[in-house]
Amino acid sequence: MTSLHDTSVRGFASDNYSGIHPEVLAAITAANDGHQTAYGSDVYTARLQDLVGEHFGAGAEAFPVFNGTGANVTALQSMLPRWGAVIAASTAHINVDEGGAPERVGGIKILNVPTDDGKLTPELIDREAWGWGDEHRAQPLVVSITQSTELGTLYTPDELRTIADHVHERGMRLHMDGARIANAAAALGLPLRAITRDVGVDVLSFGGTKNGAMLGEAIVVLDPAASEGLTYLRKLNMQLSSKMRFVSAQLVALLENDLWRRNAEHANGMAQRLRSAVESGIADGSVRGVEFTQPTQANGVFAVLPEGVADRLRESFRFYDWDEARREVRWMCSFDTSASDVDAFVAELARLTTD
Amino acid sequence: MTSLHDTSVRGFASDNYSGIHPEVLAAITAANDGHQTAYGSDVYTARLQDLVGEHFGAGAEAFPVFNGTGANVTALQSMLPRWGAVIAASTAHINVDEGGAPERVGGIKILNVPTDDGKLTPELIDREAWGWGDEHRAQPLVVSITQSTELGTLYTPDELRTIADHVHERGMRLHMDGARIANAAAALGLPLRAITRDVGVDVLSFGGTKNGAMLGEAIVVLDPAASEGLTYLRKLNMQLSSKMRFVSAQLVALLENDLWRRNAEHANGMAQRLRSAVESGIADGSVRGVEFTQPTQANGVFAVLPEGVADRLRESFRFYDWDEARREVRWMCSFDTSASDVDAFVAELARLTTD
Amino acid sequence: MTSLHDTSVRGFASDNYSGIHPEVLAAITAANDGHQTAYGSDVYTARLQDLVGEHFGAGAEAFPVFNGTGANVTALQSMLPRWGAVIAASTAHINVDEGGAPERVGGIKILNVPTDDGKLTPELIDREAWGWGDEHRAQPLVVSITQSTELGTLYTPDELRTIADHVHERGMRLHMDGARIANAAAALGLPLRAITRDVGVDVLSFGGTKNGAMLGEAIVVLDPAASEGLTYLRKLNMQLSSKMRFVSAQLVALLENDLWRRNAEHANGMAQRLRSAVESGIADGSVRGVEFTQPTQANGVFAVLPEGVADRLRESFRFYDWDEARREVRWMCSFDTSASDVDAFVAELARLTTD
Amino acid sequence: MTSLHDTSVRGFASDNYSGIHPEVLAAITAANDGHQTAYGSDVYTARLQDLVGEHFGAGAEAFPVFNGTGANVTALQSMLPRWGAVIAASTAHINVDEGGAPERVGGIKILNVPTDDGKLTPELIDREAWGWGDEHRAQPLVVSITQSTELGTLYTPDELRTIADHVHERGMRLHMDGARIANAAAALGLPLRAITRDVGVDVLSFGGTKNGAMLGEAIVVLDPAASEGLTYLRKLNMQLSSKMRFVSAQLVALLENDLWRRNAEHANGMAQRLRSAVESGIADGSVRGVEFTQPTQANGVFAVLPEGVADRLRESFRFYDWDEARREVRWMCSFDTSASDVDAFVAELARLTTD
Repeated sequence: MTSLHDTSVRGFASDNYSGIHPEVLAAITAANDGHQTAYGSDVYTARLQDLVGEHFGAGAEAFPVFNGTGANVTALQSMLPRWGAVIAASTAHINVDEGGAPERVGGIKILNVPTDDGKLTPELIDREAWGWGDEHRAQPLVVSITQSTELGTLYTPDELRTIADHVHERGMRLHMDGARIANAAAALGLPLRAITRDVGVDVLSFGGTKNGAMLGEAIVVLDPAASEGLTYLRKLNMQLSSKMRFVSAQLVALLENDLWRRNAEHANGMAQRLRSAVESGIADGSVRGVEFTQPTQANGVFAVLPEGVADRLRESFRFYDWDEARREVRWMCSFDTSASDVDAFVAELARLTTD
Repeated sequence: MTSLHDTSVRGFASDNYSGIHPEVLAAITAANDGHQTAYGSDVYTARLQDLVGEHFGAGAEAFPVFNGTGANVTALQSMLPRWGAVIAASTAHINVDEGGAPERVGGIKILNVPTDDGKLTPELIDREAWGWGDEHRAQPLVVSITQSTELGTLYTPDELRTIADHVHERGMRLHMDGARIANAAAALGLPLRAITRDVGVDVLSFGGTKNGAMLGEAIVVLDPAASEGLTYLRKLNMQLSSKMRFVSAQLVALLENDLWRRNAEHANGMAQRLRSAVESGIADGSVRGVEFTQPTQANGVFAVLPEGVADRLRESFRFYDWDEARREVRWMCSFDTSASDVDAFVAELARLTTD
Repeated sequence: MTSLHDTSVRGFASDNYSGIHPEVLAAITAANDGHQTAYGSDVYTARLQDLVGEHFGAGAEAFPVFNGTGANVTALQSMLPRWGAVIAASTAHINVDEGGAPERVGGIKILNVPTDDGKLTPELIDREAWGWGDEHRAQPLVVSITQSTELGTLYTPDELRTIADHVHERGMRLHMDGARIANAAAALGLPLRAITRDVGVDVLSFGGTKNGAMLGEAIVVLDPAASEGLTYLRKLNMQLSSKMRFVSAQLVALLENDLWRRNAEHANGMAQRLRSAVESGIADGSVRGVEFTQPTQANGVFAVLPEGVADRLRESFRFYDWDEARREVRWMCSFDTSASDVDAFVAELARLTTD
Repeated sequence: MTSLHDTSVRGFASDNYSGIHPEVLAAITAANDGHQTAYGSDVYTARLQDLVGEHFGAGAEAFPVFNGTGANVTALQSMLPRWGAVIAASTAHINVDEGGAPERVGGIKILNVPTDDGKLTPELIDREAWGWGDEHRAQPLVVSITQSTELGTLYTPDELRTIADHVHERGMRLHMDGARIANAAAALGLPLRAITRDVGVDVLSFGGTKNGAMLGEAIVVLDPAASEGLTYLRKLNMQLSSKMRFVSAQLVALLENDLWRRNAEHANGMAQRLRSAVESGIADGSVRGVEFTQPTQANGVFAVLPEGVADRLRESFRFYDWDEARREVRWMCSFDTSASDVDAFVAELARLTTD
């Protein structure tokens, strides 16, 4: 098969519009040929376990799965009895972007809380953290936070520690949706464990797909007491890969040689470049009428555009509306976003807003 | 990353112990680089739809998913109301090997029927095809058959047509678990549609993984009236790949240039070589005490071994017990099984049974 | 068995703290003896269907069930595909008081919207009524409203009609949780159909328990096109009574001779008596520091009490805190609340607030 | 309301065709009037707990629910993790008569085993008791037996003890569907605990409805270590009665003064009278062509009738076909079956078979 698409075209729609990082693809190739035991008893999955131990500390255990929704739902199920509920920001991926999978497949009620910036706080958590022992209320036993958030913002290690302590003091457990955990750790300049295990996260959905994998995430259990039955749940949630070596090899490639960080730093840097260029344009008048709605702390930029600009800009570059009513858009950068992609994009934005 | 395993070692444990066929890996590579719309609006998924139309006839629609369990459960859900049940052979993968996913995730009761050879018949179906309109009974509205079966046997086109007519006359629908549909079509020397759409199959789980893909299956809807909501069900069943182009590209590679058939013919041929060699050995006395329990019609060989032989044979070659109590084993051949693999295996079997 | 409790003690905790109205108990007795076909093919269930036709119009069909949660979850399931979501007020019983049953048993995501008074409006509905066709979003296909609401407020017929039109124009369906529909109709001085079928409600959970039954509700399908499979869903949701004649007979008793209205008018009247007496007390200074938080339109009174009063008042009369943080309480009246109950209660409240 | 049916007509269709025993109805009346705390914190539920302790031993705990399907599914869920399966006879009510509720609501796979007489044995259990630790297999962690069985047969205490030991030795738990436990204990002349707790049953579904209640069963936890979360599961499975006092009062009436035993002995005795009379008729030639298919050990009689007799007999008396293909019918006796009912029935049977 030959390529059917123009391999030089990139946009700002999502970090899952990009392809496979060459080192990840090389890892898939290296894992090929010969026979390996199916369903996870292979040397690449074993190697992944070693790397997870290195990155997250001894005892951390990884369960590779196919995708982020699968990771989140399966992780949360393993942390909750059938009568459990999870507290999350109303903007959380599990609340708005998983097609009801947490409810229908997981049987989990999501107690969602509005936030300004996608980040929970102890005060926000407490709006729903009550009613334990009352059978009429789905029991809030897990809090789920996203790092970096769906709004491109970051929790600091101190904020995470405060939340984890708060959650644990109330007998709950802390789950982190880390679809973009790499972007967060890179932005904070910290190792993965410094914003997960070391601050009290119990179970992590570790994202690979948005960071350069073809597909592959891992549920990483940081406190074994917080999770039960993942072996079974992964299978019955239809997330168990038979040729798991290829999912694991991708995650190995990301965790070896700090590819995860290199990819994330690049994506974050491109988002910064984009934001800075637009801000400069606003300052010097070459860009007009653009306002930012969130700080740019990871690889996403959120802005409000003048009437009509979004659609005209989309004639050249793909990106999504975030809140159409207020003309808010989201621009995502990826491991493969180039400086020239950004520069061309800002030039076109400048042209359109001053036209 | 370099290879961590001995790429020259192969066994007879399962067709999912093998890796990725080079043409499939090349297709993944060809689909890489640049940006493509996530979640299926990409050119590779569009190409897959075209190929599915060519192989299964106009109007057939493919929904790529991650794995076989996901394909089966999601397909069956799309064919059944919440109160529906599915009739299947007791040996069906959905009944014994999916960790309860059909019941727990799908909410589907399986009305299972014992068979001799893994194949349903109208008479066997009728053991459970009753009770429509009685709310106390989960309603049998779908029959699911596996082609080739979990016991390595085949339905002929006539048998399939008879079953489909029987099923449809009773107001039910027919699902086919085609994890090894390629092996079946290759063995019968027929195009894919001749044993699916042309004989009345309504929805097919089309298998890629066991036929040389890294991972990837497709739910193929052959009669649109038999299935509802797959777009939504695939997402909420956590089977929607964001970078779908890479799943689709694999299936494209299999369906283009008849790679699916070449791989299947090879695997089937190796199973025939194995069976013939053992039969010859039995005839000439070089193999002793081995009996076959099923005809070898696809890529699996089922045999009963003399006491103690299985474990000693496994010191050299991986394979599974099928029914330990009766010393029955299963030997599976794959697209990458070589003639010398088979010959070495039979030689060792001969040595051990005449030792 | 003799009575184990003091049959003269009543409080203001809930309308389900009261017992069985004598006419309902007489109906149970009248339905006793002899054999009747189980599971609904009995003459009392047939009589119920006739009465439902009289009250709600020809073609309305009743499915008796055990309790309100069962009625709501089963009704909503029958109105929704597996990928459906329901829009409801955040205070809705289905959202806060059903232990996660809609999510876990129904598989239904609830898209909840904060309100001031427990009532949805077209504008509030539109906050969540979007995203049709997007598989990442659980599909909002039903709006559920409660009449009278959990906050003791009422929708007028005009408000209901406006909501129903709004909902239907968007291709959605309207469910009404009528656990206290009798109180609403009585308060508005209207027949049941005037606030249900005539204004566009598609499926109603008709409440009996809080209106004088021992136990028993009915899902009443007002538009047959809006609901599917209730016969099966009721059974598999474990809401099918074998000796259904006794559930139906209770509902018959309520619907015959307008007992439903008499009971509801009495309960509403006692709530008005309570509210008026407290308001008079505030006016004349005999009650101090009490503020009402909602209009009293049905049988519930919501008020904020001075610090410490609630607990002292509870030494004599049972009632619940509604929002402990703001010292808000709920006082519910029932079909058996007496004028002297109310008067004694207000006298004690006066004593405690002026102490 | 006046009676709408002929209170003198009874048949042999089912023990749930009969009504409420007068002592049970009196108990409902005695529990009426005044207010009692909803959802189980009432004195009748407390009294029930005392009686359960007396009948089943200290520490046994009862959770009243609405019906048998609710009791079974909720009990089994409380005994199983999400990945659990239950082994049961293929004729078990949970397998054939609950509309798929165990699978869809409970998420539980039923591993069913054919039997001759509705009774499991260690050997039969072992056909499905395997595969622990294999994530591809729903984990068999509970065995469920029915006492008396759906075929009117009984487990002896020794048989029960043998099964319980067998089950426990394999790390599984034992559930008993006791929809007709009273009939079993009465037939064996033993106290309830002698065939439940004393022989190793872990959790019991205790039936009231078929033994003279209007509706009401109780999940009785005999070993607290075998069950978790019933408080929550009962609510979210929609089996929590608000006016629970009336469900509990019925069960109290049955357990006080040995009404449960009196009712069951009567029903069993009528079944014996029926069987004996037919056997005598066969012996003396007044009944022809009738064969019994099961021993009559409780309150059900299973027989094969000559061609055409069943439908003609049904012109006078209601009863069900059991296996239409072999002309097998089921005749059930109840607490209110009279000797003259039986005698008239046998007389008509004699007339029709010798016509």
